[in-house]
Amino acid sequence: MELAESILAGDRLALARLLTLLENQAPEGARALNRLYPQSGRAHRIGVTGAPGTGKSALVNQLALHLRQGGSGPSVAVVAVDPSSPFSGGALLGDRIRMRDLAGDRGVFIRSMASRGALGGLARTTASVVDALDAAGFQVIFIETVGAGQVEVDIAAAAPTVLVLEAPGLGDGVQALKAGILEIGDILVVNKADLPGAESAANNLRAALDLGSALAKEGDPPAWTPPVLSTMALSGEGVPELVLAIQRHREYLQGSGEWSRRERARLRREMLQLLRQRLSDRFLAVQPDGAFEAALDRTLQHELTPARAIEELVAEGYPVPR
Amino acid sequence: MELAESILAGDRLALARLLTLLENQAPEGARALNRLYPQSGRAHRIGVTGAPGTGKSALVNQLALHLRQGGSGPSVAVVAVDPSSPFSGGALLGDRIRMRDLAGDRGVFIRSMASRGALGGLARTTASVVDALDAAGFQVIFIETVGAGQVEVDIAAAAPTVLVLEAPGLGDGVQALKAGILEIGDILVVNKADLPGAESAANNLRAALDLGSALAKEGDPPAWTPPVLSTMALSGEGVPELVLAIQRHREYLQGSGEWSRRERARLRREMLQLLRQRLSDRFLAVQPDGAFEAALDRTLQHELTPARAIEELVAEGYPVPR
Repeated sequence: MELAESILAGDRLALARLLTLLENQAPEGARALNRLYPQSGRAHRIGVTGAPGTGKSALVNQLALHLRQGGSGPSVAVVAVDPSSPFSGGALLGDRIRMRDLAGDRGVFIRSMASRGALGGLARTTASVVDALDAAGFQVIFIETVGAGQVEVDIAAAAPTVLVLEAPGLGDGVQALKAGILEIGDILVVNKADLPGAESAANNLRAALDLGSALAKEGDPPAWTPPVLSTMALSGEGVPELVLAIQRHREYLQGSGEWSRRERARLRREMLQLLRQRLSDRFLAVQPDGAFEAALDRTLQHELTPARAIEELVAEGYPVPR
Repeated sequence: MELAESILAGDRLALARLLTLLENQAPEGARALNRLYPQSGRAHRIGVTGAPGTGKSALVNQLALHLRQGGSGPSVAVVAVDPSSPFSGGALLGDRIRMRDLAGDRGVFIRSMASRGALGGLARTTASVVDALDAAGFQVIFIETVGAGQVEVDIAAAAPTVLVLEAPGLGDGVQALKAGILEIGDILVVNKADLPGAESAANNLRAALDLGSALAKEGDPPAWTPPVLSTMALSGEGVPELVLAIQRHREYLQGSGEWSRRERARLRREMLQLLRQRLSDRFLAVQPDGAFEAALDRTLQHELTPARAIEELVAEGYPVPR
């Protein structure tokens, strides 16, 4: 049986093999994904991001457990793009043990992405992996990324529903990190709500949201105001309410046409990225031997800026096509 | 006087204006940089990275003060690409006050980059800003980035000398973040060495390095073993030793040929990035109206994967050039 067919038949090992092929950008992986792709587009993709130490993995774990309802709920996949995630190997022992809650449930599939070293390709391979999981029939896909760093935040932000996590008591350095990621959240979560400072963290978030909507008052009222929820991922408190908020957000997206608008924006970014890569591969393949290296030498000699060198290379080597 | 000439004549306002033009990717900025570029290539670029809370900005501040020696030392520029840096606005009051140590010294220039929002362009604009500072005559340029997130780490790692900072007591989440960045460090620094746990942090780093070199034992011995230094950025303790280590690393780079090897690798990456952008701009400009959008529609309908859609678009729209 072909890889794609095995996957559609529910073969988990075949699925894992495909994900590895996609991570390695092997042609065989792309071929199988081509066949699977028409089956995709049904999953609810949920980005989960937040500073290190906010408890993203533990919360995703609880969300998955709650959604599964002991086996009768929707199937769930988790893609962890987070160097501090227990799913992707940066684990503490306690987290590893908690993951066992999900072990043995065939309706749950967990995949970690190699974050470091996948230079430039992380967003692309993550997108392929999520597409494959979607086509394989997973109904909810969590994409967990650490909320520090543009590539990582962008990966979570590409999902139609984005959870941004906070936690009290992370220290000033980490607090400062969060400043840029609040605005991408559709749902804001104060996790570790049992720690001191949790309530004031939630109040600060609400105040920030109120300020934001007061500033935006001139135009139309926003169709969706991000709720601020409190959870304790270790005990599961607040998780049912969070699941409801996620479902409400999905209904809002579908009812308002925002779902397809976001899908279109995501695919446009992905395709532009692919276009750039493909055109430069083709360009370099048809250059006379050493043309690129000669241009590089001139920038090394500080004759030309890199931008100017590329301009000249493109003008000489690649006349405007018909 | 032209912008480039004003800058070479030492006009700081003109320099600040050029950096803004470069950040906005304005053609006037590129033109001025073209004229300045032959003057660049003399600065020692030093990347400084580490998790939030390790005290990068305070240490860079001390390094600049120490290098300046009250005005007789080399001129110093600081480029802060760090949402948690006081230089780039995520400041605590204490940090802002400390920055005043450098205020009024014409041999010091500090520039913060807008990290969030500069989607995709952050590495490119940072490179241009550093080139401009180099051409303007700054002899040492610190490039400070937060060590969490691929783009940010890569920006610091592009410098020929890279400092990686640690600090004791940052919490588990932050510790996990650091795992991936140690290997890019030419010099490892345990800052906040007065805090409990500093000594064991330094010992852990040395053990990790010993393990690394034991594993690499088969081949040639490494020409440079990253030293592990302890500093207290607030008091300046350990800073003279760190300055010496930086100077030793520069001598090693220049003596071994590693300097030009790293420069070549950096410029190659930068040029490939520019090539991709330029080719896709040209490609899209010559497409028939709506060709890209039609391909996008087909991926939205889940007919084709994004990769396959781009393959077809390129094959149809852009025959292999002569």
